[in-house]
This record gives sequence, structure tokens and C-alpha cells, in this order.
Amino acid sequence: MATAKGMKEIAWDARQAGYVLANTSYEERSAAVLKMAREIDSGRKSILRANLKDLKAASGKHLKRAFLDRLSLNDTRIEAMVESLKTISHLDDPLGNIQNVTERPNGLVIAKMRVPIGVIGIIYEARPNVTSDCAGLCIMSGNSVILKGGSDAIHTNMAIFKCIMKAVSKTRIPREAISLIIRSSRSEISRLLKLNEYIDLIIPRGGEGLIKKVTRESRIPVIKHYKGVCHVYVDSDADINMAHSIAINAKVQRPGVCNAMESLLVHRHIASRYLPVLGYEFRKLGVEIRGCKETKVLLGWAERAKESDWSREYNDLVLSVKVVADVDEAIRHINRYGTRHSDSIVTESLAHALKFLREVDSACVYLNASTRFTDGYEFGMGAEIGISTDKLHARGPMALKELTTYKYVVFGNGQIRK
Amino acid sequence: MATAKGMKEIAWDARQAGYVLANTSYEERSAAVLKMAREIDSGRKSILRANLKDLKAASGKHLKRAFLDRLSLNDTRIEAMVESLKTISHLDDPLGNIQNVTERPNGLVIAKMRVPIGVIGIIYEARPNVTSDCAGLCIMSGNSVILKGGSDAIHTNMAIFKCIMKAVSKTRIPREAISLIIRSSRSEISRLLKLNEYIDLIIPRGGEGLIKKVTRESRIPVIKHYKGVCHVYVDSDADINMAHSIAINAKVQRPGVCNAMESLLVHRHIASRYLPVLGYEFRKLGVEIRGCKETKVLLGWAERAKESDWSREYNDLVLSVKVVADVDEAIRHINRYGTRHSDSIVTESLAHALKFLREVDSACVYLNASTRFTDGYEFGMGAEIGISTDKLHARGPMALKELTTYKYVVFGNGQIRK
Repeated sequence: MATAKGMKEIAWDARQAGYVLANTSYEERSAAVLKMAREIDSGRKSILRANLKDLKAASGKHLKRAFLDRLSLNDTRIEAMVESLKTISHLDDPLGNIQNVTERPNGLVIAKMRVPIGVIGIIYEARPNVTSDCAGLCIMSGNSVILKGGSDAIHTNMAIFKCIMKAVSKTRIPREAISLIIRSSRSEISRLLKLNEYIDLIIPRGGEGLIKKVTRESRIPVIKHYKGVCHVYVDSDADINMAHSIAINAKVQRPGVCNAMESLLVHRHIASRYLPVLGYEFRKLGVEIRGCKETKVLLGWAERAKESDWSREYNDLVLSVKVVADVDEAIRHINRYGTRHSDSIVTESLAHALKFLREVDSACVYLNASTRFTDGYEFGMGAEIGISTDKLHARGPMALKELTTYKYVVFGNGQIRK
Repeated sequence: MATAKGMKEIAWDARQAGYVLANTSYEERSAAVLKMAREIDSGRKSILRANLKDLKAASGKHLKRAFLDRLSLNDTRIEAMVESLKTISHLDDPLGNIQNVTERPNGLVIAKMRVPIGVIGIIYEARPNVTSDCAGLCIMSGNSVILKGGSDAIHTNMAIFKCIMKAVSKTRIPREAISLIIRSSRSEISRLLKLNEYIDLIIPRGGEGLIKKVTRESRIPVIKHYKGVCHVYVDSDADINMAHSIAINAKVQRPGVCNAMESLLVHRHIASRYLPVLGYEFRKLGVEIRGCKETKVLLGWAERAKESDWSREYNDLVLSVKVVADVDEAIRHINRYGTRHSDSIVTESLAHALKFLREVDSACVYLNASTRFTDGYEFGMGAEIGISTDKLHARGPMALKELTTYKYVVFGNGQIRK
């Protein structure tokens, strides 16, 4: 738990451990993650006790209910952590495969080998399941991991970490491959973010403030899992019934998550037919609407949207609505106000669909489906460490393969450069 | 040339231009790059005049000869710039292809589409050919580019940029897709590095100081093209003649470049047989050797290496030499002191070869070949924008494909999340 060791020492040890871990077999990594699942399962009482301690400490701090909800564990949630680790332990090995083999005229054979990234730092807030999920995903992909969880979850994270380490101690994987940083001073994190010689990647998971701080201070490459201002655009050529059910689903099925719709764009030609019916339904479901001028004419009860509403992630039963002239205006609006997460067009026009799919600059662009599907499980990855809103290395849902990189291996028989 | 516009405006315009550029056809992009080649060809007199101006200004500044050499152009070098653009214009289109198509149980069809990164900033020192190469590679891959060249090359870069813009003005590609920043104040660059809303990637090309500054200040993702401390390890089971020619080639064929060998590791069992002969040859070729204690015993005339020598990029006819116990010590040494660029093992032992290829944590790991092959042309990419020493997104030689990313396109017929 690294209370005595300095940040630099933790990171150096993680790098050395990573070299050992990178060369363990699939069976060894899989068995280690399965053991983690078992230890968490049998350690659930002590985890719940620790969680109670955190919840008591938090209750005095006037934190938001959603925050306390994320922090709190129960049997079902521990079960989910256990199941998630079991799933991870059965995923295909992302390492070692050799691709893009080419032979050059001089006889050199060049290929790409898939390898772990090395050492990954995860900086997150008070979601205890991140501790076990990330430990499992990183070990399974051959990466050392340095976990820095929110200070409000300190006892819970320590209890989970204890189970994880008990599992790891029964394997050939070095203990130093997983560390939990429990000191919470801001300068400690700042120091961590400067250790680009030993840490290869930082993934921040949390609110806007955390992500901005990490981006500002880090000398280590960062893959951001930033907010999702997701759009559904209902085209002039949309199937109205389909558009109706997609819009409702994208907004209300789980409004607190990053792939929920925050902004609805409607083509002018169908707005007067479509919006009153949809608006009525949203109102019944308790959704507050903030509309543009034209929306306001059609839905008298709606609030008027401010400029800042177009880039707001409400994470709640609130929706901004704008009437647009055509698919081009919709694309421009999304590229300007969106967060490059997930955006959908509802249309029966092939030309409009292709234009939208090509030109919207987001990680996941949908045709005739809800934005809510942006998720590692829904994409068939079997797990996820988060959803990247960055454009380099990995976009959208990230799982095992996205935690790897490649190196070139070059086979010669004495070639020298002329 | 953006003298009046502010940094933010330049970057915003580049982003908008990028959306247009991303949707031009292969033929349009290829024709534009070919036009650049022609305009530079026919503008060579004005480019050479401008270069003379820069060289005159530089001659008063007591700059190193190597620096002045990199800055200076002549007919042959302009010819090379023209040829390079022609080659780039004929490379395969890296955009638009659709891969990894899968159908989910709910009927969603999910695929990855290859798209441009968006806006790329190149910060470089006084090599005028970077201006034309990077403009060509970025336009060909559908990316807007912001070029910030060294201030000593200002007139040359302006003359080259003028030719490039003359070419672009004859196409559908917006002028704002290419900008050259000629103001050189440090605070301007710092401001540029904060514009992560508009710029997607920064590639610094230059010395250690430049790269460290950019890494420290940038909030935009950076792919570093850092120094190359490359190793050749001569194993106990090496073919001695092959080891000899590879070591000589890796060191002396072009010592000033990043893929040249800086450090030679020799297995103890063959050191007494191998090193005296090789050392004699190196001495004849004017190579200064800085050796470990054991090397010094075998090569009395060698200097003794200091600890700092093991991580030095000499870029010159200097070589550090260390005798090691086995392939494990060689791997540990390389992972500790190397820069993850290019490292080679010379051996006839399959076990040692595989161990080395697997465990050395570098972008390019060689068996029985010179490290000098790490190069976009030698790897069959037809061009290169540089050699990444980072582990995310792209490692080793970077060309058109490495300047692209992917997005998920998801085809539904009304799917909503349950």
C-alpha cells in the first residue's frame, strides 16, 4: 500500500515489475485475475465493514447523494465486482500476436508484435469498483498499474486492495505490479504526473475538474475519459416512430451516464409534426426541456436555452433541443458543441446517413440507434476500462486491446545499410 | 503566413478547414501535393535567395557547423524536397477504409473507419525540408497542419510556404489547412500548446531542450521524436563476421542520426576474441571508445566510460562499450539506459533471439541486422514524418497511416438499450 515508499520508488518498482509481468503466460495472468475474484468474494465482509467506515466519514461532509451512492457498496455490488473480474479472466489474450508481416527487398522481415503499454496510472474518484476492474484489466493485459482512488473511499479501496494482493501473492506476478496510493495530498499527484520516465500512460476517470487538472499537469501521455455531450439528430427523412423511441431511450433510460443524450437536433421540415408529440412524452417522463426559439414556439412550456446549454452535460432529466435547417447544420452544431463522444442520426436517407457518419467528428457515430450503446460490453469487448474522448491511440470504449501497443520486430541475416 | 491573426484564430480556422479537408477525395489531395512539388520546383530560385539571407544572418551567430549544414539548401536538396512530395502524392490513401466489422446479437453492425486526426502542430528546428515534407504528409492524410519552424530558417520557410500556398490556392483545399507561424516568441509557442480544444496532436522535432519544453508545457497530446541511444548486443552465440559488419555499419555509416548505434554490448565469453579486432577497426575509422572496466583491459587505448556515458547520444564517432554476463544483463541494460528507439541482437541462438525480441522494450528490435534500418523508407512506408519514441498511438517510423485515427460507425435499424 506504499505508505513508506516515495512516488518515484513506486513508479520505478512498477516499471521493473512490468518487465516480468509482460513475459508471464496467458494462463498465469488469467489465473491471477480469477484469484482476485475469489479473494474479493471471500473478503466481502471486511470490504463492507471498511465501506461503512468511509460512508460514516462522508456523511458528515454534506456530499451529494449521487456521490454517496457511487461510494456505497452492498452484496449485489460486490457480486458485480467479482463477476467482472471473472469475465476479464476469460477474455482473449491481447498480447504476443504478430501482424503486418512484410519482407523487404533486402530480405529483412518486419512485423508488428502486440505488447503491453508498460505502467499505467489510474486517477479516479470515489467508485470502489474501479479499483478491482482496473487491477484486473491491467494485469490481464500485462501492464503494471498504479491506482490513485478518491480519498473518500480510502478504507474501501484498502480492503479491496488487500484482497487483490492476497491473490497476487499466490502467483509469479511481482507484488510491485499493482500499487494503491493512499496518501491524498495534491502535491503527491502532481509529483506522480511528472514521472514520465517510469509511467507510460495516465487515465483519469472522474469529473471535469479532475480531468482538467491532470491534463494541465501531466508530462505523461493522458487518455481522457471526458464528459459526453451526446446528440441525436432527427432528419427530415426520419422514421418518426423510430426517432421517437430512440430519443426517449437515449435521454431517460439512464440519464446520469456519459452516453445519454444531452441535446436533440430536429430538422425544420418535421419539427412541427415531431416535437409536440415527443415534447408531451418527455414532459410526462419529467424531462425539462431547454429549447431554441423555434422549439419554444412549438413547446410553449419549454424553457429558453442559453448559449451555454448547447455544451452542457446535464447528467439528469434535462434536455436541450434545437431546430436545424439540414444535416449540414446538424453536423456543424455537433462538431462545435459536442465532446466527440457519441452522436446519432435518425434517417431513411442513405445520402444524409453517409454524410453524417463521415463528417461527425466523434468516437462513435450512429445511424438509427440510441447513443446509449457506447459501452465496452455492448461493443462486444467483454469489459471496459472507460470511454476515451481523445483521438490518439484509442477512441470510444477501451478494453484489453486498447491497453496494449506494438513494437516492430525485425528479422535479418546480416543486413547492413548501404 | 498568419502575421496578424492570433494563435487561437489560426487554430480555430485550421480545425474548420480540417473538416473540409477530411472529406476531399484521394485524387484532390494527391493532386494538391503534386502541385506543391511543382511550385517548389519552379520557385527554387526564390527559395535559394531566401536561404542565403538566413545563412548570412546565421553566420554572425557562432552556430555549430552541423546546424548551418542542416539550414543550408542547394539544388540537390531542393530536388530531394520535390521528389519527396512527388513520392508522398503517390502513396496509398490512408483514409476511409472500414475494418473490424462485427454484428452484435441485437443486430447493430459496428465497424472502425479510418479518419484523419484533425489538426496537427509541428514544432521543429532549422531543417527547411521539414516544412515541405510535413505539409505534404499532413495534407495527404487529410489533416490540417500548423508549422512552427526554427527562427533561423524564417526566410527559407516563408519562401517554401509561399510555393505551397500557391499550389493549394489552385485546389478545393482551404488555405487555412496549412499555416506557418513565423513569430518566434516563446510565449507564442506556449500559447499554442494550450489550445487543446482546436489542436489534436503536437509533434516536436528537434533537440532535447525543445522536446522537454514541449512535453512540459503542452496540454495537447504529444508524440515525441526523442533521441536515439541505440544498442547492438553481440551474443555468445554470434556469427563473429556478421557481428563485425553490423557493429561497424551501425556506428560509422552515418553517426549523426538517431538510429546509429551509441552503445555496444558484448557477451563476456567472446569479448576477448571479438573486441580487440573490432576495436582495431574502429580505431582506424576514427571512432573514440569509452569502455567499461573489462573493455579497458582488452582495449588499453580506450577511455573509461562514466555512468553518464551509458545514456549519451553522441551523434558522433564516439561509442560506449560494455561487457555483459549474458542476454539478460544486455536486456536489463538496454531497458535501463536506452531510449526505446532501436536495438539489435546478433546471435545464432534462437532462444536468445526470441528472449531479446520479446523483452527489449523498444520501438524497433532487430535480430542480426543494423539498427540503421529504422526509417520510414526502409520500412516500406514510402515516406516518414519522424520516428516516435513514445509508446502510445505510434511507435517507430511514422508515415501516413500513423497520422490517422479511427472512429466507430454503428449501423442500426431502431435499436434501443434495454
